[in-house]
Amino acid sequence: MATIFPSRRVRWTPFTKGVEAAGMKVCTVYNHMILPSVFRSEEEDYHHLKRHVQVWDVSCERQVAVQGPDARRLLDLLSPRDLDRMADDQCYYMPAIDKDGGMLNDPVLVKLAPDYYWISVADSDYIQYVLGVADALQLDVNVWEPDVSPLGVQGPKSDELMARVFGDDVRAIKFFRYKRLAFNGVSLVVARSGYSKQGGFEIYVEGSENGMPLWDALFKAGADLDVRAGCPSTKERVESGLLSYGNDIDRTNTPFEAGLGKFVNSPKDYIGKQRLLERSEPKRQIRAVEIIGTIPSIREAWPLMANGRQVGQVTTATYSPDHKTNASIAMVDRSHWNGGTKLTVETTDGVRDAIVKDSFWT
Amino acid sequence: MATIFPSRRVRWTPFTKGVEAAGMKVCTVYNHMILPSVFRSEEEDYHHLKRHVQVWDVSCERQVAVQGPDARRLLDLLSPRDLDRMADDQCYYMPAIDKDGGMLNDPVLVKLAPDYYWISVADSDYIQYVLGVADALQLDVNVWEPDVSPLGVQGPKSDELMARVFGDDVRAIKFFRYKRLAFNGVSLVVARSGYSKQGGFEIYVEGSENGMPLWDALFKAGADLDVRAGCPSTKERVESGLLSYGNDIDRTNTPFEAGLGKFVNSPKDYIGKQRLLERSEPKRQIRAVEIIGTIPSIREAWPLMANGRQVGQVTTATYSPDHKTNASIAMVDRSHWNGGTKLTVETTDGVRDAIVKDSFWT
Repeated sequence: MATIFPSRRVRWTPFTKGVEAAGMKVCTVYNHMILPSVFRSEEEDYHHLKRHVQVWDVSCERQVAVQGPDARRLLDLLSPRDLDRMADDQCYYMPAIDKDGGMLNDPVLVKLAPDYYWISVADSDYIQYVLGVADALQLDVNVWEPDVSPLGVQGPKSDELMARVFGDDVRAIKFFRYKRLAFNGVSLVVARSGYSKQGGFEIYVEGSENGMPLWDALFKAGADLDVRAGCPSTKERVESGLLSYGNDIDRTNTPFEAGLGKFVNSPKDYIGKQRLLERSEPKRQIRAVEIIGTIPSIREAWPLMANGRQVGQVTTATYSPDHKTNASIAMVDRSHWNGGTKLTVETTDGVRDAIVKDSFWT
Repeated sequence: MATIFPSRRVRWTPFTKGVEAAGMKVCTVYNHMILPSVFRSEEEDYHHLKRHVQVWDVSCERQVAVQGPDARRLLDLLSPRDLDRMADDQCYYMPAIDKDGGMLNDPVLVKLAPDYYWISVADSDYIQYVLGVADALQLDVNVWEPDVSPLGVQGPKSDELMARVFGDDVRAIKFFRYKRLAFNGVSLVVARSGYSKQGGFEIYVEGSENGMPLWDALFKAGADLDVRAGCPSTKERVESGLLSYGNDIDRTNTPFEAGLGKFVNSPKDYIGKQRLLERSEPKRQIRAVEIIGTIPSIREAWPLMANGRQVGQVTTATYSPDHKTNASIAMVDRSHWNGGTKLTVETTDGVRDAIVKDSFWT
């Protein structure tokens, strides 16, 4: 696989010095920014994540800041999820859709004030949709990408490490809630969230100059916890059923197909509401699929077949060391999505047997 | 530099087999897609481009298709450039802006029919802004990313190679105009355009299945022309003053700062018109800057200084083998943008002398 050409367009992050010193071997590009993919090896990073604690440079989870008198009006136009129920310290997983209910992103919305939100985006420039709507309707709102770079602390020892740096207050933060906590005299949003199911936090680091001091403080405080630089693990996220926009879902999918129907409950007249509700009984949906045998790396969708007919596609697939099988995320037609259904999958290295699971591996 | 992690999210192209067989060594990610950056070496690729002919996989120049009764109305809302003057076979370099005149992209607009256009985008999801405006105003228009992957044929022998595959009609295509020409029974848009100043064409390949047959046909026809796989050359584009969205310009810049003021001439009430025209006398603008001495790779902006004060920034910089100096693209304050002005630049390897040029190196 080729190396990445250096340029300003593929942005580095406030934590790049730490990531490079930690020996990043493989990376990807996400929201025009470098996202580490492998430090020691995929398998070693995975085992470590599930047993210890890692610090993740997820700066690429960029924020779309929305602030002003019309901020809430704008978000009500964008959100299929009912924002009236959102607490002041809450983070909301929010399907983002177009007028037909096609997904444009699957961000986390962070409420900072009644007239100030961050939309923490997956890999698409959702800021441009937000701007398009705001500009077309001449709303009184500012929309911009602030200097905020999330740093993940993930793994079973996350609470212990975080408490050593931010104090015991972090232990009381509930799932998808946040507190503002001080570091070096700066108040940072610290949320119990993250792109793994091993427990942990995301620190929304405001001000690039605070990046490396925080990185260094976490490594200093966690030396005896075997803290390491890490990154989202494909193996762990597939086991856990965490979706990746651009891999597992895109604009051709509705939130219902993505299994996110429970987040479609807004009483407001948001853009796309009518078509989305018409599509609330999906003909296909995300499923966990086990694949038998050895498989190659996946870089395009693999067709799922039954009796010579395509009934879905595998979008992410990887070997699970703990479960000693290949775990995958797939979009499967209703006719074949029940747990136990036997299928075949056309990988780029040939056909393999596959079986639809009742649930992911967690 | 790290290698790229394989995934479906970072998309491969219809020409990937050809690119890999040709020995791509370095790449980047552009519009969520792989874009080759180096085949033999930056310098060897550059010299070859300027003397022979290359085939470029620029699939990452994705199209935003806009079709329907309100297509032209939508484009009139988006375009600072006067579309009344656009001929039926024309491609228009069109600054794309937000309501404050900040640049969201710098696409090429291709007119296929009065109610059907492609917006061929640089590296941002401008499709989301187009959708946001269309959805908010409930316009009667379809906006989607079609299966169209541009293939560049660039270099002084481009006309000869293209004529062998598409017939002598290609020679008559004027700059930024196109013809529909047949290949293997498929009608393809062939434009005289491309991201170099060495002459050449872009073939908008409709239908991924037509990708490799066309790639192979070009290499077969051009064996005696020393045709090679190539890619946009940073060295050549900086010499030529070709801007890169995300490197040299972004949302903090207006088209006037980018030196694109001549494309701001629409009589229509497009979004951002008022603020943009208020900003028509820029306080800073793109300039060619020569840097003395040896320089590192650039991956963040380098401050340009005069008497201890920052007066601009270098955004792309590279050694020019033909001109035997370092060529760069910079945004320079009005106070210091005249040709001949002496400055210093703070590279990541230390301070270097620099001089503002009257023009780029072509």
